Amino acid sequence: MLLDNINKVNDIKKITPEDYPALAEEIRQFLIEKISKTGGHLGSNLGAVELTMALHIAFNLPDDKIIWDVGHQSYTHKLLTGRREGFENLRKYGGMSGFPKRKESDCDCFDTGHSSTSISAGLGLVKARDIQGQKHSVISVIGDGSLTGGMAYEALNNAAKLETNFIIVINDNNMSISENVGGISKYLNNIRTADTYLDIKEGVYNTLKEMPKGNKVVEGIRKAKSSFKQLVVPGMFFEDMGITYLGPVDGHNISAMLRMFQEAKRVRNAVIVHVITQKGKGFEPAERHPARFHGAEPFDIETGIPTKPRTTANYTDIFSTVMCKLGARDEKVVAITAAMPDGTGLKRFRNMYPDRFFDVGIAEEHAVTFAAGLAAGGLKPVVAIYSSFLQRAYDQIIHDVCIQNLPVVFAIDRAGLVGSDGETHQGIFDLSYLSSIPGMHVMAPKNKWELSDMLKFALSLNAPVALRYPRGEAYAGLQEYRMPIELGKAEAIYLENEICLMAVGSMVKTAVKVRKRLHEEGFSCSVINARFVKPIDENAVEYAAKHHRFLVTMEENVASGGFGEKVREYFDGLTTDCKLINIAIPDEYVEHGNVDLLKKEIGIDEESITNVILAEMK
Amino acid sequence: MLLDNINKVNDIKKITPEDYPALAEEIRQFLIEKISKTGGHLGSNLGAVELTMALHIAFNLPDDKIIWDVGHQSYTHKLLTGRREGFENLRKYGGMSGFPKRKESDCDCFDTGHSSTSISAGLGLVKARDIQGQKHSVISVIGDGSLTGGMAYEALNNAAKLETNFIIVINDNNMSISENVGGISKYLNNIRTADTYLDIKEGVYNTLKEMPKGNKVVEGIRKAKSSFKQLVVPGMFFEDMGITYLGPVDGHNISAMLRMFQEAKRVRNAVIVHVITQKGKGFEPAERHPARFHGAEPFDIETGIPTKPRTTANYTDIFSTVMCKLGARDEKVVAITAAMPDGTGLKRFRNMYPDRFFDVGIAEEHAVTFAAGLAAGGLKPVVAIYSSFLQRAYDQIIHDVCIQNLPVVFAIDRAGLVGSDGETHQGIFDLSYLSSIPGMHVMAPKNKWELSDMLKFALSLNAPVALRYPRGEAYAGLQEYRMPIELGKAEAIYLENEICLMAVGSMVKTAVKVRKRLHEEGFSCSVINARFVKPIDENAVEYAAKHHRFLVTMEENVASGGFGEKVREYFDGLTTDCKLINIAIPDEYVEHGNVDLLKKEIGIDEESITNVILAEMK
Repeated sequence: MLLDNINKVNDIKKITPEDYPALAEEIRQFLIEKISKTGGHLGSNLGAVELTMALHIAFNLPDDKIIWDVGHQSYTHKLLTGRREGFENLRKYGGMSGFPKRKESDCDCFDTGHSSTSISAGLGLVKARDIQGQKHSVISVIGDGSLTGGMAYEALNNAAKLETNFIIVINDNNMSISENVGGISKYLNNIRTADTYLDIKEGVYNTLKEMPKGNKVVEGIRKAKSSFKQLVVPGMFFEDMGITYLGPVDGHNISAMLRMFQEAKRVRNAVIVHVITQKGKGFEPAERHPARFHGAEPFDIETGIPTKPRTTANYTDIFSTVMCKLGARDEKVVAITAAMPDGTGLKRFRNMYPDRFFDVGIAEEHAVTFAAGLAAGGLKPVVAIYSSFLQRAYDQIIHDVCIQNLPVVFAIDRAGLVGSDGETHQGIFDLSYLSSIPGMHVMAPKNKWELSDMLKFALSLNAPVALRYPRGEAYAGLQEYRMPIELGKAEAIYLENEICLMAVGSMVKTAVKVRKRLHEEGFSCSVINARFVKPIDENAVEYAAKHHRFLVTMEENVASGGFGEKVREYFDGLTTDCKLINIAIPDEYVEHGNVDLLKKEIGIDEESITNVILAEMK
Repeated sequence: MLLDNINKVNDIKKITPEDYPALAEEIRQFLIEKISKTGGHLGSNLGAVELTMALHIAFNLPDDKIIWDVGHQSYTHKLLTGRREGFENLRKYGGMSGFPKRKESDCDCFDTGHSSTSISAGLGLVKARDIQGQKHSVISVIGDGSLTGGMAYEALNNAAKLETNFIIVINDNNMSISENVGGISKYLNNIRTADTYLDIKEGVYNTLKEMPKGNKVVEGIRKAKSSFKQLVVPGMFFEDMGITYLGPVDGHNISAMLRMFQEAKRVRNAVIVHVITQKGKGFEPAERHPARFHGAEPFDIETGIPTKPRTTANYTDIFSTVMCKLGARDEKVVAITAAMPDGTGLKRFRNMYPDRFFDVGIAEEHAVTFAAGLAAGGLKPVVAIYSSFLQRAYDQIIHDVCIQNLPVVFAIDRAGLVGSDGETHQGIFDLSYLSSIPGMHVMAPKNKWELSDMLKFALSLNAPVALRYPRGEAYAGLQEYRMPIELGKAEAIYLENEICLMAVGSMVKTAVKVRKRLHEEGFSCSVINARFVKPIDENAVEYAAKHHRFLVTMEENVASGGFGEKVREYFDGLTTDCKLINIAIPDEYVEHGNVDLLKKEIGIDEESITNVILAEMK
């Protein structure tokens, strides 16, 4: 095995060029085998095997700096920098992260996770290098999907002014997680497929030389340098901005990439190297179903079929189904996703109502203001974005939706702990950042039926509404509790005395379990489903405070600005002997791992909560 | 006066074309005269007079929809839609807003204020129109400065797919508030100045016709349609994305614009009309000093000099001075602004240390991640962005700065109420959205000396720090209180008993006044300067709770997630008879007007606070 000789960074440089294809094949088999067991990002990593090898051969880590946009394609990079053992516990609690982490290796120079940050970060590293008189290379590797994100363009706009070297590798597989959208994709595609450009380039050079002086067109072309470049250079827009363009080059041909990287190193400004890759390359199921193998659960290597097929519905499925029903019922309902038709469950809506479905690309800011425009135009938009990605559109929610009180519904999936993606993807801030916005309404369902009811309610409210629900299996308990949703009204599930658990969304399920344990300890216990985080149900808080010794708020969100603090503010104005306990996520980042383990670790699982309450009861 | 005949929307259509120049001149004189008294955005409005007239002549409001990016250039639009009287009380409390407002007129179809939103909103209105089978035009008017913002590009990327009409007017004055930066500016400038393009266009058409068939180059050009377009069409990047490009056209020539708008209406996809204007046009001081007349205080019409020259330093001046000193002391200190070298006070730093100063354009997201890159590269970046604009970079602060614990200092000007710019610009959320982020430190200075001390402290902390200070005059009281800044430590100003006022930043000055009033009522009163909102000084809270009957927190920020809630959370765990009162901005948007009036209106002025306390004392 060639891979046996690669135990630390730069070991790849000992491999002879003839062995590159064999090594690439070994890496692919390694990745497929490991990810089939642990789950993880497969397609993007299979597509970037040779590109990563070429970068590690052409450059000198850790002196040279590679920033991986999003970072889910960094597995080969991890493998080539001494982290082979880490794949045994990839994305597991305490194990190796699925993203670059500075704390994991000095070859990881900048943490990533969200899209479109790499050019900004790389430009920062370039300026830091230049100011301190250092000489290393800085390389940002960004997918064409990430180029649909506006901040990548803000960064390109700035990189255009550089007068020192900065290498931007566009890893172009013509895909985001799902298929790519929009003008820039079309632009890249034009370049990618324009063999004619190259033919013309050669032809024009030769013919211009042959042509007689004095011809008006030829002289015009010769004089107008920029027009001339427009004719003969693909990637003209980049060139016109001031960025050198090299490519396109086959991203599975290592020697071709090495030649181009050598050329790129000599450029004295920002330079784009346009690399064409195939997502899922070398694993036939992933080549055929790139979206399915973007972030894969463990699967059978022969068939590509998940090892543990899902048998129960998750919240995404429920959202998907209800959206289709609501779409049939009301032609004003439209749906927006930021490059996640599969992940958000909107694919079915797209198939049924293609004219009322919008995939805007990885562009959360635009998604929200676009939705505000749709609402101002009289429609009922539902914007489905994961909790941590919606952070990107915080200003647009305030500025474009809520100040104008426009009826935009935010369907916020992956709210709360998301598990194996870790710190960057945990959706633990949304209750806080949304509920501080005047005019916003914030809800969370206790179970799958309530998600359905809340979505219908949200669309009927004619005001901004956020509806947050977690990743994974939809709770199917408490089916018998289905009081109609009323604005700002909580729902009593069990009414007893002594202790009252007032829980938000996913924590209602936990509250039911905590109640069981408290019963076993001889305490009686109410459970109230908060339903609304904004506005909170003051009557319910007052009832709870007057009829119990302890009121315990429970939420899967940071404490600061969350549900508990809102309850506390009202609670403190009441005359009562009841004591308030807030259970929330502590003020720290939560790493990757199994969600149940993580909850235990941060003290929001049933056992920890029960123990906190019992300690208070003593 | 021609203007006398213009009393409602579409009255301009009765003006004969020969009178257009005279009307334009009247509008300019009107605007200069009014703004010289009330203050307001002058330069951008003088630049857009003819453009606005042409739009109102070519289109039919309110059926057709115009979205004004940022919106500060909408004065002529307001004048032409029956709001002449409004200029008497422009930007005053209860008076006309300086930005488009749906609640002000049905000719204002979408509220704006922050940059780069208009194409997203316009695209939403286009889709709403098409889905509902309507036929009106939608026009987004966006400046070239706003095109440096990433979400404008996200929107263009989506507009490229349109198969119905959508008109995007680029109002190109080659300026943001200050001079423009980056590649896109260069690109537009190439188009603007490329007369050669037009010459060549004609030449090529003619010559191609004359040339013999069979010539390799000519045939190649004929075949490769996109290459051909690259040669002859300016704005090729837009065309390549799928957006029609028309222009450039002189933005002070109404008939030329009218011809182009007629052409634009016929296009069956998104179409850019590239209009060249001059900021400050027709008022010589504004033409010469466009940045100074961007948002102007009242001024003398003859000289352009402010009527009430500033005699005292504001916080921006202090920040400006201290940054220059710190820059001299430490070569690792670098400064970043998002298109606000003047507004943030970083212009002096730029002049002294041009290599360590970065104006990234209107690109807050990029600014923050770029700063994270600079910090990861070993430098000490200070990012100066106004509070409400920093909302744009909320995710980047979490994801790129704080998760990696990078030492980026955020200098947050215009925190708290900003006054005449109104709802979209009030900086009333930052304490909440920043203090919920793990790893962040949040400070606010009581007076000008403390801003200086805190900035030095922030740069020494080697961790993420946010330092927020308000618009306007720097408080020069309490000079004798200048205890060294210590992490998480509040500062005792006056220690008495009965009442303790614990105030954040700008509210310390108010607290001193409240104390005086309480003294007059016979109560003794402590004042504690909180200094830190994160981490809060628990010892100070405990001291206050144990030695007073009332503890009053005071902050110029919304209550939800703010300082008061953090104090309350700790306070509730103490055993004390003290009562806690939180003074904060209520859960509503705060409109434009004089800051002192606004504070009274929302109950955070000295009188309201005193009355709240006295009512509790009874």
